[in-house]
Amino acid sequence: MAEPRKIIIDTDPGQDDAVAILTALASPELDVLGIVAVAANVPLKLTEKNARKLCELAGKPETKVFAGAIRPMVRKLVTAEEVHGKTGLDGPDLPEPTMKLQDQHGVDFIVETLMAEPKGTVTLCTLGSLTDVALAMVREPRIVPRIHEIVMMGGAYFECGNVTPSAEFNIYVDPHAADIVFRSGVPIVMMPLDVTHKALTTARRIKAFRDLGNRSGVATAEMLEFFERFDEYKYGTDGGPLHDPCVIAYLLKPELFTGREVNVSIEITSELTMGATVVDWWGITKRPKNAVVMGGIDADGFFALLTERIGRLP
Amino acid sequence: MAEPRKIIIDTDPGQDDAVAILTALASPELDVLGIVAVAANVPLKLTEKNARKLCELAGKPETKVFAGAIRPMVRKLVTAEEVHGKTGLDGPDLPEPTMKLQDQHGVDFIVETLMAEPKGTVTLCTLGSLTDVALAMVREPRIVPRIHEIVMMGGAYFECGNVTPSAEFNIYVDPHAADIVFRSGVPIVMMPLDVTHKALTTARRIKAFRDLGNRSGVATAEMLEFFERFDEYKYGTDGGPLHDPCVIAYLLKPELFTGREVNVSIEITSELTMGATVVDWWGITKRPKNAVVMGGIDADGFFALLTERIGRLP
Amino acid sequence: MAEPRKIIIDTDPGQDDAVAILTALASPELDVLGIVAVAANVPLKLTEKNARKLCELAGKPETKVFAGAIRPMVRKLVTAEEVHGKTGLDGPDLPEPTMKLQDQHGVDFIVETLMAEPKGTVTLCTLGSLTDVALAMVREPRIVPRIHEIVMMGGAYFECGNVTPSAEFNIYVDPHAADIVFRSGVPIVMMPLDVTHKALTTARRIKAFRDLGNRSGVATAEMLEFFERFDEYKYGTDGGPLHDPCVIAYLLKPELFTGREVNVSIEITSELTMGATVVDWWGITKRPKNAVVMGGIDADGFFALLTERIGRLP
Amino acid sequence: MAEPRKIIIDTDPGQDDAVAILTALASPELDVLGIVAVAANVPLKLTEKNARKLCELAGKPETKVFAGAIRPMVRKLVTAEEVHGKTGLDGPDLPEPTMKLQDQHGVDFIVETLMAEPKGTVTLCTLGSLTDVALAMVREPRIVPRIHEIVMMGGAYFECGNVTPSAEFNIYVDPHAADIVFRSGVPIVMMPLDVTHKALTTARRIKAFRDLGNRSGVATAEMLEFFERFDEYKYGTDGGPLHDPCVIAYLLKPELFTGREVNVSIEITSELTMGATVVDWWGITKRPKNAVVMGGIDADGFFALLTERIGRLP
Repeated sequence: MAEPRKIIIDTDPGQDDAVAILTALASPELDVLGIVAVAANVPLKLTEKNARKLCELAGKPETKVFAGAIRPMVRKLVTAEEVHGKTGLDGPDLPEPTMKLQDQHGVDFIVETLMAEPKGTVTLCTLGSLTDVALAMVREPRIVPRIHEIVMMGGAYFECGNVTPSAEFNIYVDPHAADIVFRSGVPIVMMPLDVTHKALTTARRIKAFRDLGNRSGVATAEMLEFFERFDEYKYGTDGGPLHDPCVIAYLLKPELFTGREVNVSIEITSELTMGATVVDWWGITKRPKNAVVMGGIDADGFFALLTERIGRLP
Repeated sequence: MAEPRKIIIDTDPGQDDAVAILTALASPELDVLGIVAVAANVPLKLTEKNARKLCELAGKPETKVFAGAIRPMVRKLVTAEEVHGKTGLDGPDLPEPTMKLQDQHGVDFIVETLMAEPKGTVTLCTLGSLTDVALAMVREPRIVPRIHEIVMMGGAYFECGNVTPSAEFNIYVDPHAADIVFRSGVPIVMMPLDVTHKALTTARRIKAFRDLGNRSGVATAEMLEFFERFDEYKYGTDGGPLHDPCVIAYLLKPELFTGREVNVSIEITSELTMGATVVDWWGITKRPKNAVVMGGIDADGFFALLTERIGRLP
Repeated sequence: MAEPRKIIIDTDPGQDDAVAILTALASPELDVLGIVAVAANVPLKLTEKNARKLCELAGKPETKVFAGAIRPMVRKLVTAEEVHGKTGLDGPDLPEPTMKLQDQHGVDFIVETLMAEPKGTVTLCTLGSLTDVALAMVREPRIVPRIHEIVMMGGAYFECGNVTPSAEFNIYVDPHAADIVFRSGVPIVMMPLDVTHKALTTARRIKAFRDLGNRSGVATAEMLEFFERFDEYKYGTDGGPLHDPCVIAYLLKPELFTGREVNVSIEITSELTMGATVVDWWGITKRPKNAVVMGGIDADGFFALLTERIGRLP
Repeated sequence: MAEPRKIIIDTDPGQDDAVAILTALASPELDVLGIVAVAANVPLKLTEKNARKLCELAGKPETKVFAGAIRPMVRKLVTAEEVHGKTGLDGPDLPEPTMKLQDQHGVDFIVETLMAEPKGTVTLCTLGSLTDVALAMVREPRIVPRIHEIVMMGGAYFECGNVTPSAEFNIYVDPHAADIVFRSGVPIVMMPLDVTHKALTTARRIKAFRDLGNRSGVATAEMLEFFERFDEYKYGTDGGPLHDPCVIAYLLKPELFTGREVNVSIEITSELTMGATVVDWWGITKRPKNAVVMGGIDADGFFALLTERIGRLP
């Protein structure tokens, strides 16, 4: 087997972040160098604790968890408790974590790791706002050419927005950070709402997690049942979109996804459309291509992969 | 039979405008009080001449045709010859019109008509930019409560833009005019790209026009064959979207369309997203509902209606 | 004596507009082709009536007065009753006018006059927002090269704003109109707050008007006494700035003013700085020069001129 | 004598920064905890080296010098070599520094110092962009209430801008950082161009530095002679404005300055006015007061203070 791929997960768990983290920790193809928690879905105090809970649930308390940015770069923090519940992980009853938070600041961990590891060997997986990655780029621009790629959940094109009519939550929370990252020149794979809204947590799919019988499977089912409530009601679908695990699934089985290399520009000027990811899907502009934006997903294959992986956990 | 519905058509023909105009002139349910040409797809000199050509093609040289705005309110004129050809009506070989252009300015015609006709009896049908309507509202705000409704082709939501990644052409050409109209309080029915991209000019549908055998049917087929080239190539579909006739079809058979009453706000601040129609489809914001935005169309019923009507013409 | 110079005055009287109008009507060097009232300081119903009152006060009831735009192009109307009083002409007790308002729309009058008079012979003097002039340019772009020049009161540079910290009232009321005018290519002479704040209505200067003894002189004194209250209190100066008469004084004695040919660009994007006149006084940018912006005034000479002229009136 | 006041100087030397640093190091009333260099006038490699040169010139090689941000938060770095010369300290021939740069990142030094020193005892003196201070606030919001005050050179009001017609260089370089700082709630004293353009480096004042006879005095004279060239030419004045020393002079003799407590808001939306400091000098808006903006200076007293202090150095 090949060397496992080195990744840093930047995340604001969040039930869907949780499923992504569990999947990553269950996958021998991935070497999770660290998990950096960022404030977004819920405040930082909760996201870093949730990250630790998940490492313990996965039976990997040795995973390094860091606290990253406590607020966005320029704008005030917006959270999404109405989606994720008060803790961000509402649903299962997970014990308080006993593993410790790392002392180092998450942004410094990103910088230090990228400068220490061989150039082009570390992938950044972002499941929340891009604040930490952008702050790392501002702090040490020499990391930019050292990043293998950034695989992110964020943005929307044909699906428009979720937190506003124009913007997806992860980008809206810190549009300036997104602007910095998309203008940096790092190769980006973007999983927008266009993909994730095709990956619905139907009753049957949730049951498959529960039927795994292990603690992680049951917790996953409980998280998704809580999580889907908001979007099922909003969109009237069977199940809600499962966003963040798309990032990890892409690392494991990129063939599950189809997309297009295009230019993505971030709206940071107008309050009305703030945080919109302007995707030049049809190549109308002359702007340079800076991201592979996914649009299609084999949803059954995706859920089968997640279920199989979470089945490997305690 | 009921009184025919009084309409003013504001238009920048344009092949798809042409089909809309022909359909309107063929329909006894509609009383076309006047046609106002506006600069957009091609310059005003051409759009007003094209409007007259179409009236003569339809055998209605008595229709009043006016020249409206020669430029957008604030921004420089952008045209779309790459879509419509040099004349705006490339495709058929229509004779130079002999009927005269009205002396009155199109904006004044709109104002005068709305002030003269009974309140709430005149519908404005806009197939191009909203410049003339907005200028009429600025010139005489008292027309606002006198308009029955505005049925417009313009904007996009899930389909995003065509002229830029964020904006549809008619709105992009004069976003300030659109902003004025959408904030005016007039009831609006909006036919965005989301509808029109479901109304494709397939070979079979074009053939149906040609097979009508009349002059108007053949000219329609020729116009659509020219027109579809651009979008077929761009989108890789069988046929291009047929935009403007949706407006007239809605007046004749509203049951062909499904939509939702929502808030639409126009982006006029940011160059990146200039002219975006921000549609609050999911009711995320508290902004007041100001338009019925259509999303669904019975495309076969739509083309059957157009074909039947154009079949009535010379 | 040379032919009198043909001017159209566009105005929103306003006490300082009033003094400008009286001065113009008293000056044989000027041929006032018409006065167009626009909504700004107070609503249109009042500004057009005030214009007529002033013509009668000046003994020139034959002057043509038109109603122009009743609202700005894009934004909602903002008025300034706190400065000008409820009527716009608070101060003297002027009789209701008996002369009639012209039927023609003020914008049409501007267009028609410019198209009828020899090219380059008509000067537009704007004392209020630029709405009418911009609407005329949008309606008939061919007027643009026919305008001799526009002499305007509006904007600010070192003096910053008065209605907001960044914007002067006349520009703020309709920044889109100002943007159109400043990008039109017409030669512009701009009298910003930088000039007018050096032309203070001190007690001595007001007394000079009153001491003229004629009806117009006394009314001028009464208007200025009312008008100065607001700015005296705000700025703590002896007398308030006398804005609009600078425009007419420039036509009569340009040597009273010093300025610089520079680029002026209008802020229409940001709400914070909306309507700012960005004057490239030091030639920092490469933007083309489009206006002569005045900065200096011989204030005593200016008031002497006004006093002498108003002394000629009844 | 009272305890010396603890300050951190954040700076991008820069000849005028240099005079500020020398003055601070010469003043027993001030305890310079550290000097953080930031990229702006010239790139970071130069500003941190220049800071060390100046400490050695002042005979204080024990001063801690840190490298802060190498780039602005969101925008690309703009430098000003045309003003400051290729090195940023063109003019005197200062030896390469032998003292070492501190290992710690300048932003971390700011955070750590503020968390370690008693609350409210440390003043931040910013002579360049606000990038480091804003990054510190983003990294650790708990520092905000611990800052005694920020005394900054930056912005402009009646003097408008220098790098653009609307913006002063320090703010323009990183408007987002300025926006964060001005919205933070920290007490701010701002020295805008309005003050510094009244503090001109006339030939007589430069001579006074040279006549001190010491190495620091001669170097100051040489720096100012180089520095003034740009602005003398631009503004046609005797001497250029001496910006940054106003910050240190204020700490030593606040009575040299007069100002007003007002609201300052930063333009970050519009490219035209980007980085403008919108100062509500006349209290027109209801925005809360967040800064004392200076407008007046006793220029002779100011130069006398600087000369006396620099005379104390080697």
